[in-house]
Amino acid sequence: MRTVFWDYETNETKMIDQRLLPETLAIAAYHRHADVATAIREMVVRGAPAIGAAAGFGMALAALESKAADAAGLRADLEAAAATLRVARPTAVNLAWALDRMLRAAGKVDGSADDLREAMLNEAQRIADEDVEINKRMAEHGAALIEDGDTIIHHCNTGALATVDWGTALGVIRTAYEQGKRIHVLVDETRPRLQGARLTAWELQQYGIPYEIISDNAAGYFLRSGQVQRVFFGADRVAANGDVANKIGTYMLSLAAHDNGVPAYSVVPTSTIDLSLAHGDEIPIEERTPDEVLGLHLLGRRVAPEGAGARNPAFDVTPNRLVTAIVTENGVVYPPFDVNLKKVVKS
Amino acid sequence: MRTVFWDYETNETKMIDQRLLPETLAIAAYHRHADVATAIREMVVRGAPAIGAAAGFGMALAALESKAADAAGLRADLEAAAATLRVARPTAVNLAWALDRMLRAAGKVDGSADDLREAMLNEAQRIADEDVEINKRMAEHGAALIEDGDTIIHHCNTGALATVDWGTALGVIRTAYEQGKRIHVLVDETRPRLQGARLTAWELQQYGIPYEIISDNAAGYFLRSGQVQRVFFGADRVAANGDVANKIGTYMLSLAAHDNGVPAYSVVPTSTIDLSLAHGDEIPIEERTPDEVLGLHLLGRRVAPEGAGARNPAFDVTPNRLVTAIVTENGVVYPPFDVNLKKVVKS
Repeated sequence: MRTVFWDYETNETKMIDQRLLPETLAIAAYHRHADVATAIREMVVRGAPAIGAAAGFGMALAALESKAADAAGLRADLEAAAATLRVARPTAVNLAWALDRMLRAAGKVDGSADDLREAMLNEAQRIADEDVEINKRMAEHGAALIEDGDTIIHHCNTGALATVDWGTALGVIRTAYEQGKRIHVLVDETRPRLQGARLTAWELQQYGIPYEIISDNAAGYFLRSGQVQRVFFGADRVAANGDVANKIGTYMLSLAAHDNGVPAYSVVPTSTIDLSLAHGDEIPIEERTPDEVLGLHLLGRRVAPEGAGARNPAFDVTPNRLVTAIVTENGVVYPPFDVNLKKVVKS
Repeated sequence: MRTVFWDYETNETKMIDQRLLPETLAIAAYHRHADVATAIREMVVRGAPAIGAAAGFGMALAALESKAADAAGLRADLEAAAATLRVARPTAVNLAWALDRMLRAAGKVDGSADDLREAMLNEAQRIADEDVEINKRMAEHGAALIEDGDTIIHHCNTGALATVDWGTALGVIRTAYEQGKRIHVLVDETRPRLQGARLTAWELQQYGIPYEIISDNAAGYFLRSGQVQRVFFGADRVAANGDVANKIGTYMLSLAAHDNGVPAYSVVPTSTIDLSLAHGDEIPIEERTPDEVLGLHLLGRRVAPEGAGARNPAFDVTPNRLVTAIVTENGVVYPPFDVNLKKVVKS
């Protein structure tokens, strides 16, 4: 089953509700684009490529929702829907990328409103299908970087759940494992939303890949004591100079890898690379509700005292000097990133 | 109320049960040294100086428990009790330091078994009383490093709860605040046991010092974006070269501070400095039960999938190059630590 897909019987966008995993595997169904925007905001679906695919299907829903009788009227409704979806989350550029692609496709349709509705669904389906194919290509390129016997630290979730299927960084690990390489994964639990402990652990368990969960704090210990050979993570947006915005904690993890001479790889589809931004510091960083930090229970007890406040930035920027290479579907990109990233991004 | 104290009416060692905070403030009472060892192991009491004081009172209990009729017999029982207490936790040197001090005091008593029993309680009480006085002196030295308007990241809990009273790093912050300096504390939640979110937040709330909790992963974001002026933490053991073993995550936090030119201070009584170890890599690092990582619930749901494993090192070593200064009761020690630490440790 794909993480995000279109149900052709009910004409709904469906997705695994990732908030309920690993306890419950439930499918959420949406027939309004505004509800897809809410699902993205509330992280029913998360992971940059999965968000992009969900936004594409959200636009297909918007086309069906619209009462417009002609293509021009429908295009106006699609513009409005794109504006609603675009602000759901700010950091992952795949959201804007998918919406822009859908709007470009809409602009090319020379026909009726129904032709445009059909084109929208077709384009959204193409985005989803291509994502799976792109992930497989990334995985092949990235798996060559992994050696038999490696222990790998992985941050957040970048697997099938973060994409339409297969995954980015976790897809690389999965492919290396299927190639017969013996791998052990140390899974960063990834506070505050614990995508590592909840989602990556669940995926690895299903794939039969050996793993252990560690608190994010412990990554430095394992790196410094020589127990780790590589670090892998995804990205939500990569700037033209190779600065990587990714799940909060990636910067400190990359620092610790760098301090110990352990290579750190970001695995991304080229749709995550934003050549319009010169530096990572231009990437907008989402700050989410303090409840994600404060709503924690340990052994049945609430953790933070009543009345406590919290800050909750969801992403940080890892400067390019700490990134060994960026793995894309078009090959592995090494520094200088400002020169070499351009070569793999199709204009 | 002190975190660890002797009840002279019941002849018991009492301590705040820190596992229950912040929900419940409960006092645990022990009349057997073996139960004090268990309390240390299970972290009813934690924090290097508090562990030292608890071990001292544990020895006073052992003296009362012993049926020995003469001092020589009692000394043998005390040796056995010290052996039991010594292995409760391996990393904080204050445990061994307090036990050695108690045994030295026992060796000096020239009198009856009851004289020795009385001497043991007196020595334990002195360790506790001195800890408070030492903390106040550290706090004065350290507070001079804090400027009005500083935002400070603090890791783990180093407050009154980690000591007999007042605290080490948090004691410094508290004294600076009482001097009228406007301070904002970003409290690392400190996975896996969340001493920051549970204990430091609770203390700061009581002292009226403004704070916000952050996930440990977020420290790098705040440091890199220029929002933090200093980093403070305690230590469980400092090697002769200034390498600092402290709560897991301190190494990555110190790396991020260093990468952004933000000073990072370790605040310790000289009883935490172990001149017998040349380097931090000789410090034994405790690995605790995976349950501390896996027993987490977020919004009412268990986080990790059934069957997941975990690794759980409780401490890491921060190399001296990342430590700006070490604050002790005898003054602030700057590099070269291998030369300057010797000057503040009384032999």
